[in-house]
Amino acid sequence: MSELHFYTHPMSRGRIARWMLEELGEPYETHFVAYGPEMKSHTYRRINPMGKVPAIRHGETIVTECAAICAYLADAFPAAGLAPEPRQRGDYYRWMFFVAGPLEAASTNRSLKVEVPLDLKGMVGYGSFETVMDTLEIALTDREFVAGDRFSAADVYVGAHIGWGLQFGSIERRPVFETYFAGLSARPAYQRARRLDDTAAAEMQKTPS
Amino acid sequence: MSELHFYTHPMSRGRIARWMLEELGEPYETHFVAYGPEMKSHTYRRINPMGKVPAIRHGETIVTECAAICAYLADAFPAAGLAPEPRQRGDYYRWMFFVAGPLEAASTNRSLKVEVPLDLKGMVGYGSFETVMDTLEIALTDREFVAGDRFSAADVYVGAHIGWGLQFGSIERRPVFETYFAGLSARPAYQRARRLDDTAAAEMQKTPS
Ligand SMILES: N[C@@H](CCC(=O)N[C@@H](CS)C(=O)NCC(=O)O)C(=O)O
Ligand SMILES: N[C@@H](CCC(=O)N[C@@H](CS)C(=O)NCC(=O)O)C(=O)O
Repeated sequence: MSELHFYTHPMSRGRIARWMLEELGEPYETHFVAYGPEMKSHTYRRINPMGKVPAIRHGETIVTECAAICAYLADAFPAAGLAPEPRQRGDYYRWMFFVAGPLEAASTNRSLKVEVPLDLKGMVGYGSFETVMDTLEIALTDREFVAGDRFSAADVYVGAHIGWGLQFGSIERRPVFETYFAGLSARPAYQRARRLDDTAAAEMQKTPS
Repeated sequence: MSELHFYTHPMSRGRIARWMLEELGEPYETHFVAYGPEMKSHTYRRINPMGKVPAIRHGETIVTECAAICAYLADAFPAAGLAPEPRQRGDYYRWMFFVAGPLEAASTNRSLKVEVPLDLKGMVGYGSFETVMDTLEIALTDREFVAGDRFSAADVYVGAHIGWGLQFGSIERRPVFETYFAGLSARPAYQRARRLDDTAAAEMQKTPS
């Protein structure tokens, strides 16, 4: 029995955590949770009171929020080498929190067609979608990896958002984003993760619950 | 000359980073940046391309995003004991990313009066403001600290949001939130930080730029 449990849906942000788990190379058990009543059930809410996926359970520890799952796993399994040394984590935390905060909020609000009034842009943490895109582009220009000169959990999190965004139009098609993601998506763990979720999604389509 | 530089405005989220810096107990130099042209200048944008405060510079490392600043400083100065051991960081990351992501987004959108259509709540990372409040309450019930049994950088970040939210009405006045914040706000570092920014804010009022 694996001590690492993964709660997800194949068509969800859970794909980010799946990629991270595949990079880790530790055994884990996948539990698919159906959207709707199952995800909002009392039982699943003991894992995530938000009634959302993904979540992981590692022994007694439950972690929700994709970015937290990436950061937690990198630290809990140091042998995988997916986190920089604690004193070298400026860019690592900076860009993970930038994506979890401003980028997520800006792209959500763009899809909700929210217009931030000019006098409130100062208070709104992401300012504007354009500034977020420009800032992300600066972060990735001439860089293979977002934090330091090695692949890390920050690349999983930032990269997955960019890959998803390029696919679904929630971020702009800028060459810097495309180059960065092309490098990451060639990774065997990314490919494995995608195959696992694509297969699971196809299975679900065949047998609707 | 201090090697830790702090870019802020006394009336801003920079108060979160100030509290963290005061908990750390390392010398740092404060640079106040005025809202408007100075914060959007080419010079300041080399620190933060978002044209926002706060930011810190530590030697060659620049960190923006309040949560990232808290996490970075805790790791860069381990002697302060403000981060759990790397293998014990489930709650630490979970609740920092929860506040940086869903809580920030939900309370921003509440103040922008954004209504998420029912069919999009699943896609929106915070779901609804109510679920975010309920989840945060569960996280803090019967807990003095949000991660483990010691004060950490996660308490600075989560606690500052709660303190701010209780003061300005951006989060609900629930007893669990009030008790949690009452414990934190008694800390000498919190008091010092508040005094420093209150004083700076009062000075600015006297001499408008
Ligand atoms: N996500 C950022 C938000 C930073 C932010 O929005 N800062 C505001 C002050 S609270 C700001 O600098 N506004 C000025 C502007 O946007 O022009 C963080 O958590 O640090
Ligand atoms: N902030 C969360 C967002 C999680 C999230 O919104 N998950 C969606 C799927 S992508 C979900 O479970 N939606 C179902 C629902 O809200 O009912 C994270 O980054 O993990």
